[in-house]
Amino acid sequence: MISLAAGFTDSASLPVAEARELLQEILRSPKTGRSALQYGTTAGDPLLRRLTAERLHAADGASTSDGRYSPERLLITNGSQQLLYLVAEALCDPGDIVLLEDPTYFVYLGIAQSHGLRGRGIPLRDDGLDVAQLERTLEALRRRGDLPRVKLLYVVTYHQNPTGITTTFEKKVRALELLRRYEKAAGHPIYLLEDAAYRELRFAGPPVRSALAAGDPARVIYAGTFSKPFATGARLGFGLLPPALFAAAVRIKGNHDFGSANLLQHLLARALASGRYDEHLALIARRYARKAATMTAALRAHFPASVRWHAPAGGLYVWVQLPQRINAGLKSKFFTEALANDVLYVPGEICYADDPSRRRPRNELRLSYGDASLAGIRAGIAALGRVARRHLL
Amino acid sequence: MISLAAGFTDSASLPVAEARELLQEILRSPKTGRSALQYGTTAGDPLLRRLTAERLHAADGASTSDGRYSPERLLITNGSQQLLYLVAEALCDPGDIVLLEDPTYFVYLGIAQSHGLRGRGIPLRDDGLDVAQLERTLEALRRRGDLPRVKLLYVVTYHQNPTGITTTFEKKVRALELLRRYEKAAGHPIYLLEDAAYRELRFAGPPVRSALAAGDPARVIYAGTFSKPFATGARLGFGLLPPALFAAAVRIKGNHDFGSANLLQHLLARALASGRYDEHLALIARRYARKAATMTAALRAHFPASVRWHAPAGGLYVWVQLPQRINAGLKSKFFTEALANDVLYVPGEICYADDPSRRRPRNELRLSYGDASLAGIRAGIAALGRVARRHLL
Repeated sequence: MISLAAGFTDSASLPVAEARELLQEILRSPKTGRSALQYGTTAGDPLLRRLTAERLHAADGASTSDGRYSPERLLITNGSQQLLYLVAEALCDPGDIVLLEDPTYFVYLGIAQSHGLRGRGIPLRDDGLDVAQLERTLEALRRRGDLPRVKLLYVVTYHQNPTGITTTFEKKVRALELLRRYEKAAGHPIYLLEDAAYRELRFAGPPVRSALAAGDPARVIYAGTFSKPFATGARLGFGLLPPALFAAAVRIKGNHDFGSANLLQHLLARALASGRYDEHLALIARRYARKAATMTAALRAHFPASVRWHAPAGGLYVWVQLPQRINAGLKSKFFTEALANDVLYVPGEICYADDPSRRRPRNELRLSYGDASLAGIRAGIAALGRVARRHLL
Repeated sequence: MISLAAGFTDSASLPVAEARELLQEILRSPKTGRSALQYGTTAGDPLLRRLTAERLHAADGASTSDGRYSPERLLITNGSQQLLYLVAEALCDPGDIVLLEDPTYFVYLGIAQSHGLRGRGIPLRDDGLDVAQLERTLEALRRRGDLPRVKLLYVVTYHQNPTGITTTFEKKVRALELLRRYEKAAGHPIYLLEDAAYRELRFAGPPVRSALAAGDPARVIYAGTFSKPFATGARLGFGLLPPALFAAAVRIKGNHDFGSANLLQHLLARALASGRYDEHLALIARRYARKAATMTAALRAHFPASVRWHAPAGGLYVWVQLPQRINAGLKSKFFTEALANDVLYVPGEICYADDPSRRRPRNELRLSYGDASLAGIRAGIAALGRVARRHLL
């Protein structure tokens, strides 16, 4: 079975030797060793919080005195996943509405559902959210009196899961302006939750600033991770939050687990401080670039001309669009035939919120090149191509 | 400042050298190294789940074919704390009632509050819950028609936080029988949630079987931890749950974080399999026994005869009861004077649920000998004794 489904990262390049050396350094001395093996604080290790805040600051090219990147607003979490969960708990009540990309990260749909939230999908264009549609949706919600139920807009802005699309900085600015404009009618802040999980997995194209660099950081919640770039088994993420929300998120995290494992935090802090983290990023950028190129070349070679895909500039995914009449959903013949040919993919349909105002597309596939080998990618795409040809005859 | 407040473990005996060796072993080979640094599954590492289940099984002296200790029911979590949280999410709705010990683990009160739950305190005797009172409370709830809101009884059964009290096996059996008897009127299962966080920190007295060994494991949720016995900085816990609840807890954990960090799970599995974990337990048992003896000796030497305390046989705490007329609560002169004398303790009052049916005692102190030095324990108790003498004159 060739899995092009899992969001796993490239196993062969995991920083095994680096982690061994870093942990040796930490555990060689009783002093740093004990501190790594003892409880920390709920918000996280002070050094890791500072290094993370500085890193974000530098990535956005911001001036050094900028309070919006203060470590005081930075919370270390168990992957960025936990941050998304904490934010839902802190902000939302059952029946509330979250605005999200159409399609979006499917695990976020699970979080929203488990909190009793209703999702409203905003179509995604090649450069991010359809901002005109966002405005029409906000206006429609306002007219129906539903705006008080809208708490946030969730966007995966870098090499999006599932589409690979990166949102331009200009779109972030415009989205924030729009949300601000509708706040009065909502009666409370409407936040932009920027999920930047794939930001550091860029292998092509220019860097893009985060929403934190846009006008008003008081409405931006930024979720990032060290998990996918460094080691998913040493799973840490973080959030940068406006002060009021930060306090609420820390309180809830205190109830979850009173703080992420200190040993992992010390490992990551040392990886960042020593430069090994950045060396590792450069290595995996080369590997993912090659895997992505292999996958798109195989798609060109094996898929009918009527199939479209988005060539990624980072991240782990290629989003494939079959002609609309083809159903490639979870219960489709297409999916079953792919399985029978030993290939697994994520049906695009599961990446769409339950939104009664539009039809849920079933003609899309999320393909991951994260942990597949080059040979596996070629063989998997060739097999999928055969299935696609049969259905497109 | 001498802190007798924090629930920190003994820093000096943290297994720094052991963790270094174990991590070296894991990260020496690319094969085990990569697997430790990659995602695992949400339920946890299969080896760690099996070793944990076998360990529980052996601790209860159960027969080898006993399905109630199946690794299939075992979920690895971020400390036992996360298990408590997942259970609240899986079982309880706002307005529900949880029965708990009076006093109980104060962080659990925070979890209950954050889920909108009402706590009902059942007095704690020297051998555990007052079972006759549990029956009276259940009966009163039945008569008022409140039983359908009761979802579980939460008990910290080994060297309880905060009192140090261990519940007898017989009381667990009787509590389970009582809960079962009231299930029909409740209209749903009423679970016994056994928090065994301090079970492996025993330094005196005989071992006690868990509630899993009592009649009906279908109503027992067992929460355990590797965090306090081994390393709080490599924070892992676990739960053994009835099958239906297990599935719900895994689903919610999937939304929280899709599984605890694999690197930590590999570390713990290797510590258990190699025997280093048990060697470490023997070492800390000696250290905590000595610290506890130092603390109770200092209490005898420095406190007035009217003060009572429970000498622990394990765990991290000594529970001190001043005469009832003395207020040692968070806003008391006693607490302020202790602070002015550079000693911090946990006021017992915060360990009582908000239960309007009884007065909340304010004359108790939770003292921890976990991370204090022997000299610190002596000095801290001497200083507290001076405060106590002044108030008892």
